Amino acid sequence: MRTITLVGIGAGHPGHLTLQAIEAIAAAEVFFVLEKGRAADQLVAVREAILSRHAARPGWRLVRIADPRRASGGDYREAVADWHAARTRLLVEAIARDLPEGGRGAFLVWGDPALYDSAIRILDAVAAAGLAFHLEVIPGISAPQALAAAHRIPLNRIGEPVHVTTGRRIGEGLPPEIDSTVVMLDDGSGLAAVDPAGLDIWWGAYLGTPDEVLMAGPLAEIRDAILTLRAERRAAVGWIMDTYLLRRRD
Amino acid sequence: MRTITLVGIGAGHPGHLTLQAIEAIAAAEVFFVLEKGRAADQLVAVREAILSRHAARPGWRLVRIADPRRASGGDYREAVADWHAARTRLLVEAIARDLPEGGRGAFLVWGDPALYDSAIRILDAVAAAGLAFHLEVIPGISAPQALAAAHRIPLNRIGEPVHVTTGRRIGEGLPPEIDSTVVMLDDGSGLAAVDPAGLDIWWGAYLGTPDEVLMAGPLAEIRDAILTLRAERRAAVGWIMDTYLLRRRD
Ligand SMILES: C[S@@+](CC[C@H](N)C(=O)[O-])C[C@H]1O[C@@H](n2cnc3c(N)ncnc32)[C@H](O)[C@@H]1O
Ligand SMILES: C[S@@+](CC[C@H](N)C(=O)[O-])C[C@H]1O[C@@H](n2cnc3c(N)ncnc32)[C@H](O)[C@@H]1O
Repeated sequence: MRTITLVGIGAGHPGHLTLQAIEAIAAAEVFFVLEKGRAADQLVAVREAILSRHAARPGWRLVRIADPRRASGGDYREAVADWHAARTRLLVEAIARDLPEGGRGAFLVWGDPALYDSAIRILDAVAAAGLAFHLEVIPGISAPQALAAAHRIPLNRIGEPVHVTTGRRIGEGLPPEIDSTVVMLDDGSGLAAVDPAGLDIWWGAYLGTPDEVLMAGPLAEIRDAILTLRAERRAAVGWIMDTYLLRRRD
Repeated sequence: MRTITLVGIGAGHPGHLTLQAIEAIAAAEVFFVLEKGRAADQLVAVREAILSRHAARPGWRLVRIADPRRASGGDYREAVADWHAARTRLLVEAIARDLPEGGRGAFLVWGDPALYDSAIRILDAVAAAGLAFHLEVIPGISAPQALAAAHRIPLNRIGEPVHVTTGRRIGEGLPPEIDSTVVMLDDGSGLAAVDPAGLDIWWGAYLGTPDEVLMAGPLAEIRDAILTLRAERRAAVGWIMDTYLLRRRD
């Protein structure tokens, strides 16, 4: 039986890698990478740096799989489902071809595989499509954790919940009665749409990388500065990944 | 100026330690530990194992601080605030006495310092009390991440939020319209109080440790088994830490 490990590699800093992750990388002989767009190319470069440092099996190799494009517009869940189906077919082929029976393969997953990442679902679909393998998941430092550490703040107020959501959702309004909301996957439109009254923000982009930028303060006062900086950095770097915590002022 | 690093050490597995954490441990000369009850003694043992493996400065030392007891009953936030004030006084003393000016001290924090942990707040209070130091925070694998990895599941449904909350809160009812809720800090009474209709649960205790136990299924069917196992394990081990994900069935 094949073993496939989804290895969480952290959110941008090479030091986010855990000992478990390093061990799993050292044990794998084939690494699968889904290649996406331009932003992702830089993420692939981070993964390659990790492999050249930690991959250890003689003859280990990298198998690149061109990620099918996700249809834009239409129903979000449906578009994502179609895209996942196409990826499943490509992966079944690649695993059957490139990972020998009894071999150990790995996917390096950005952040934590459990948070806004499709690898677990894709591999469940690969298994459902009839390719048997043993699945292992190794947690990794996620972007919200990198954000909190960089700002040196807790995500929760004492005894209170933390809500983690997307820019798309936040555009429709903040959840009522929830104090601390972490927003991911926002192209800026979610942040622009939030009613800023009574909210503080802790924002971070390119967290853990040399390009890291942080801003914090009352949302009503600093939102424009964040959105301007976001657009500038995005234009300069070619892509951006940002995460922020919104919290109602006491 | 002193430097104090809060080092997230992960939720129970020695392999959760990150390279950043290892580097910070190797750089510190004094480690501060707040000692609590019996459960915490075992957690202190985990920390000691980490130190004996990764502490590297000649003459590094461990400073134990007896944690004042938290008052039970009364208002939860007030009790926690009093307890934190008492800890602040003890810490100001210990840091001033045991960490030389210009020295590097560290606290090993269970899981991630940003999630249901008081170390950041306590050190902010130490700074507010007039003891100046440079604060660094290193993220660590948290219990919800260890739970998701052990069950090999994502915490969120595609594009949907994840809500992280406490047993105390969940006892008052699940947040409406939220699909995925992770519960921490539950003594069992939160789980016992939830209306199980339409919910699935993924439960884990002692995650990442040799005692790890997992259960998953429809809450209505397995809740009693979980609560029984929880009581049994708690009696046998002397303490328990468990975390679970509740999700509305599609
Ligand atoms: C597809 S999700 C992947 C999340 C990842 N699995 C994790 O655990 O952080 C991508 C989103 O994660 C956040 N993100 C990931 N890395 C980041 C970084 N280095 N700085 C800021 N945000 C980041 C952004 O919100 C981005 O839109
Ligand atoms: C005071 S909080 C600390 C949380 C920690 N900072 C983190 O990031 O996971 C303690 C709670 O964390 C959860 N927890 C911590 N370690 C755990 C483990 N190994 N297995 C299951 N739950 C754990 C339990 O819900 C426990 O009540």
